[in-house]
Amino acid sequence: MHFEILILGSNAALPAFDRNPTSQIVHHHDRLFLIDCGEGTQKRFNDFKVKRSRLEVIFISHLHGDHVFGLPGLINSFNLNGRTSRLLIFGPAGLRRFVETSMEISHAHINFEILIHEFDTEEPQLIYENEELSVHSFPLKHRVPTAGYRFEEKRKLRKFKAELISVYNIRHEDIPSIKQGKDYVTAGGEIISNQVLTEDPPLPRSYAFCSDTVYDTDLVPYIKGVDVLYHEATFMTELKVQARDRMHSTSAEAAEIASKAGVKKLLLGHFSSRYRDLSGLLEEARMIFPESYLALEGHYFQVGEN
Amino acid sequence: MHFEILILGSNAALPAFDRNPTSQIVHHHDRLFLIDCGEGTQKRFNDFKVKRSRLEVIFISHLHGDHVFGLPGLINSFNLNGRTSRLLIFGPAGLRRFVETSMEISHAHINFEILIHEFDTEEPQLIYENEELSVHSFPLKHRVPTAGYRFEEKRKLRKFKAELISVYNIRHEDIPSIKQGKDYVTAGGEIISNQVLTEDPPLPRSYAFCSDTVYDTDLVPYIKGVDVLYHEATFMTELKVQARDRMHSTSAEAAEIASKAGVKKLLLGHFSSRYRDLSGLLEEARMIFPESYLALEGHYFQVGEN
Repeated sequence: MHFEILILGSNAALPAFDRNPTSQIVHHHDRLFLIDCGEGTQKRFNDFKVKRSRLEVIFISHLHGDHVFGLPGLINSFNLNGRTSRLLIFGPAGLRRFVETSMEISHAHINFEILIHEFDTEEPQLIYENEELSVHSFPLKHRVPTAGYRFEEKRKLRKFKAELISVYNIRHEDIPSIKQGKDYVTAGGEIISNQVLTEDPPLPRSYAFCSDTVYDTDLVPYIKGVDVLYHEATFMTELKVQARDRMHSTSAEAAEIASKAGVKKLLLGHFSSRYRDLSGLLEEARMIFPESYLALEGHYFQVGEN
Repeated sequence: MHFEILILGSNAALPAFDRNPTSQIVHHHDRLFLIDCGEGTQKRFNDFKVKRSRLEVIFISHLHGDHVFGLPGLINSFNLNGRTSRLLIFGPAGLRRFVETSMEISHAHINFEILIHEFDTEEPQLIYENEELSVHSFPLKHRVPTAGYRFEEKRKLRKFKAELISVYNIRHEDIPSIKQGKDYVTAGGEIISNQVLTEDPPLPRSYAFCSDTVYDTDLVPYIKGVDVLYHEATFMTELKVQARDRMHSTSAEAAEIASKAGVKKLLLGHFSSRYRDLSGLLEEARMIFPESYLALEGHYFQVGEN
């Protein structure tokens, strides 16, 4: 079952060297989610052939322009492409006013429902779930209200060994409870342990997104053990002071956080436009956390093993 | 003296085939003007190395998203690049609310003055001038309030033949009036005709921008005789009915208007995303008006001869 991240935009505020402001697709099973929507996101949908109709939910981390100014154009294009299904958008207070103003002044007649859910970024919370996945938000420390997001698969039912039905004469109506972990009692009163009847389900996979944020160990509990962590890495260590002042992180700091949180893989992004060559950012991170990667645009990153 | 148009975006509402929504630079002498600002305009500034600091005025034709959604990002980037000089923006009512809302919700602290002048697009008027150029707006017929723009050089002073100073003992203080067309009276009372003392100045050059608009001969007087006309050409003739319904034009209709207005050169733009190959649009226009050209992105078009 699909669980992967497609990077659409990886640059900090100023677009440079053909790198675009922040946006990325979380592709889980049949659904697409968008995190952040910098200017040009709709063009990246074209460039990388993203299936617009599968996008159900947009998560906005904060309202700095490089994370949200692509939203009016994306909504407009969805409309021109004939979208009818509902679009859910999560983000900090102010988001609704921005979207509604943009649609009003541009005389857009949107033919699908847009549900904008503004939430308190300070309050860690479950903000979205479907039958397969939950999304929690958690606070990031930046210059304005900012949320990180953790996507986590729900624990699946145990895998029932269907070949044992005839061995133990298992009744069809008992299978759901066996999948939930219960033992089985045969017609003759014999107890068959669940361990015999089932296998472990695949481990739930998880992805966390942290941008923009200053170096902040407070966020470690929220991203503990995720398979893939995206963490902003605006600067190299030489600009550590500037990073702190602007409430951004260096790539070494991103790697520190990845290490403390025991994640499996780290994606670095939100690169300052001063860096044409990103290899220095990667090297600094890998010194601390070897499983670090540059979140280059158009690249896909698998979440977990299966 | 420079007078040229640089096309930044030439597509209709949906970006396609690497074509972007409407925007273009009018480069006159040392100044840059921007007409329309679709999403991605700031990236086109990078792509074509446009000197941001020289941009003084932005003219917005109408508030459909594909003509204005790039404005917040452009302003933001100007700010991050350290702009301090004033930016003047002209456009229909609603523009100020859009820009101000975008800046407010994105927590932008803009360090330069932005003057937004909303004007009545129904009323043909002089909306801007400097010492070299005037810009008139005029009404276009589209689904929402829309203005066309005509850029026109001011008539220059006559060229004084400096080599005649010693011949007629011309006093320095009399030269300005000679440049304005007056005859010269020598100390001995002899009248020297201005024709002898001066040459004709270069002809004023002019450029007109018409997008978006249905086919409308009412606009001919406003664009009469310009050196270069940009006229939208969203569809080919086969979609003439759709063009009328959506209040757009076909390329043949653009050519009709160019012909009726006696312009020297026609630029076709605002191409529908249904056309990967634009040669059909060009051919249809050239059947009617041979001096037709596709307004391809990154292309420069000279206005006038000198």
